[in-house]
Amino acid sequence: MARIVMKFGGTSMAGIERIRAVAARVKREVAAGNQVAVVVSAMAGETDRLIGFCREASSLYDPKEYDVVVSAGEQITSGLLAIALQAAGVPARSWLGWQLPIATSDAHASARIENIDTSALDASLAAGEVAVIPGFQGVDDDARVATLGRGGSDTSAVAIAAAMKADRCDIYTDVDGVYTTDPRIVPRARKLKKVTYEEMLELASVGAKVLQTRSVGLAMKEGVRVQVLSSFTGEDAPMADTLPGTMIVSEEELGDMERQLITGIAHDKNEAKITLIAVPDKPGAVAAIFAPLAAANINVDMIIQNIAHAAGSTDVTFTVPAADLARSIEVLTQSREKIGYETLVHDTRVAKISVVGVGMRSHAGVASTMFTTLGERGINIQAISTSEIKVSVLIEEDYTELAVRVLHTAYGLDAEDVA
Amino acid sequence: MARIVMKFGGTSMAGIERIRAVAARVKREVAAGNQVAVVVSAMAGETDRLIGFCREASSLYDPKEYDVVVSAGEQITSGLLAIALQAAGVPARSWLGWQLPIATSDAHASARIENIDTSALDASLAAGEVAVIPGFQGVDDDARVATLGRGGSDTSAVAIAAAMKADRCDIYTDVDGVYTTDPRIVPRARKLKKVTYEEMLELASVGAKVLQTRSVGLAMKEGVRVQVLSSFTGEDAPMADTLPGTMIVSEEELGDMERQLITGIAHDKNEAKITLIAVPDKPGAVAAIFAPLAAANINVDMIIQNIAHAAGSTDVTFTVPAADLARSIEVLTQSREKIGYETLVHDTRVAKISVVGVGMRSHAGVASTMFTTLGERGINIQAISTSEIKVSVLIEEDYTELAVRVLHTAYGLDAEDVA
Repeated sequence: MARIVMKFGGTSMAGIERIRAVAARVKREVAAGNQVAVVVSAMAGETDRLIGFCREASSLYDPKEYDVVVSAGEQITSGLLAIALQAAGVPARSWLGWQLPIATSDAHASARIENIDTSALDASLAAGEVAVIPGFQGVDDDARVATLGRGGSDTSAVAIAAAMKADRCDIYTDVDGVYTTDPRIVPRARKLKKVTYEEMLELASVGAKVLQTRSVGLAMKEGVRVQVLSSFTGEDAPMADTLPGTMIVSEEELGDMERQLITGIAHDKNEAKITLIAVPDKPGAVAAIFAPLAAANINVDMIIQNIAHAAGSTDVTFTVPAADLARSIEVLTQSREKIGYETLVHDTRVAKISVVGVGMRSHAGVASTMFTTLGERGINIQAISTSEIKVSVLIEEDYTELAVRVLHTAYGLDAEDVA
Repeated sequence: MARIVMKFGGTSMAGIERIRAVAARVKREVAAGNQVAVVVSAMAGETDRLIGFCREASSLYDPKEYDVVVSAGEQITSGLLAIALQAAGVPARSWLGWQLPIATSDAHASARIENIDTSALDASLAAGEVAVIPGFQGVDDDARVATLGRGGSDTSAVAIAAAMKADRCDIYTDVDGVYTTDPRIVPRARKLKKVTYEEMLELASVGAKVLQTRSVGLAMKEGVRVQVLSSFTGEDAPMADTLPGTMIVSEEELGDMERQLITGIAHDKNEAKITLIAVPDKPGAVAAIFAPLAAANINVDMIIQNIAHAAGSTDVTFTVPAADLARSIEVLTQSREKIGYETLVHDTRVAKISVVGVGMRSHAGVASTMFTTLGERGINIQAISTSEIKVSVLIEEDYTELAVRVLHTAYGLDAEDVA
């Protein structure tokens, strides 16, 4: 007997027929003797509909009330899946965030899970029930509903798996695993059998939107074995414990044998580039730029400071999420006098291309191969950032697909044959 | 300063524009110095959508999970109205059923409110906040969401008004008050300024669907002054404390001056007639019929037992809600041997017409006028039932409108002039 968490996304919950298919899938795991908790997303499109209502009601909506509204989507699917499971002969009940409870911080609309009380859950599982838990939601110290932010259901699933000491957390999604790159761009992309938490973190944060970044970080911290697998396979699909998807594991579990130099190529078009022209070249100048952005909770990613002009000033370029561009401009305009820059220019027509792999720790030349390969194709590099297991460059958006394709080949990631 | 409860139905909640109009209406009451709690329904059509999902998932759905699903509709509108009020400059917050809490019985899908803890609510109102409360929902002893059954938001509003000792409970609805009869049938129907609880109960239970019956019974028991008024009037509408709608009051408040002989004529096409032919004419026979129906929670309304046939048997006719007809037939077929009847016949093409008025207590001849008036038009009476303030007859459905019209005239209820 294993304890597993199964998580299903919005596409799997889009309509009763699909919810019934999910129930059948859950039933197979129960029939195999497993204790199962299921974490569900809202029906596809429902969260957007509810967020739309909030925005229409007020552009400056109260996040506490927003949470009351948007958490309803997962509440609905959790009840419906419990009904569908019962109809399939599987004892089941729903547990809303406040019922377990799932305790969160009070950062409404992007709360963090602080604690999950598993006493009721354990009793329910021990009694042979499937526990159906709405993802994305919890309750704060004041007993108000709190949500975790977009994609938070993945985080819910991993947190519940950690709290109930599950043997595995299976994330059923639109794709059947994690690929070396986006197969829509590179048909020869290969599905990875295993990927490390660190690699997945880099791949997720740079645009391989299989799993929410926070959920991967949490899985790493708590040592939860996460498997990504497809929800679109029928009754004859292999059982999840045969690991048909991609397993996200620690570097130890990956082992040396399976370690590749480069695991994947990711791309992200959701960055915007800001350049502040003629910033005074003196101590404290850079802090004056980034402190107000940090205060406004805006994530700055790549930063380049050019060498100083003769006039004692310099240009500073950096990237922010495109969704935060307008707010960033507002914040920087308000701080213009304090920072002392002359002009602000911005550009959303940029893309970040990243090469990721734990193997690069012990191999030199990864960055050099990247720069050479892009240079040969005439692709200009606007900014560079690196980490232990990643090299990222910012390029003109129009070159995204070309860059991904040539890098995929350059690092030997192309599958030998495509059916 | 008064304490008032304002309740808005699904049509008033159908879309953000209307929710904003509701917020404006609430703001006027707050600006007039009142403490206000608002009870909201789900967006028009939403509850049906959610019920449809449950039925599609399983015809035998678990009412506990059904409650989780359908309560989401009011949760959504409560959050949205709180956002719209804040946007209008009115401090507001939502209070879900489990947050106050509103304690209910565990009869899921048709729970009864048992207690409302007003401590948090009182503090919120005292702090100058408008409390927005989803109707229709509460929480049972096991901390599971429970709903009150269709139309339960009226009951929520009255129960909250009673608990917080509100001066008035204003029910905003599609109509602008209670009429002497359905104005779609009788254009000369008049709006009633006041109606007693008892009359409203009879009018509601026989088909004048302005207010849910349970809410009227509760208002009577708790002495809550309920006003029915239109949600479809703009900024220049009279303030609710000028009582522009219909006030539902006690007989004492009504007073002798305003007492009419007959208050209204109601009709109800949602009854079905069942006749058991050749039931043994012996003690206990009738009990054998109605005990299993009661056990199945089916409400029997009109009952007629014909005089015994020569053969020592009799026919028994009664009505049940049309929605319960199939179940009734099933129950009676199972009990056929025990009851000993020969044949069961049924008819859904019937209508119940009722003449209601507290004035009839002190006046004879009301029933006689009814029978004569209907007889003159050739309308056959299939069954009769009476209470202290009501006479009801069962007739063929096709004659409904004719019967209502001639009775409205016969009792002098027609307005003198129609604009």
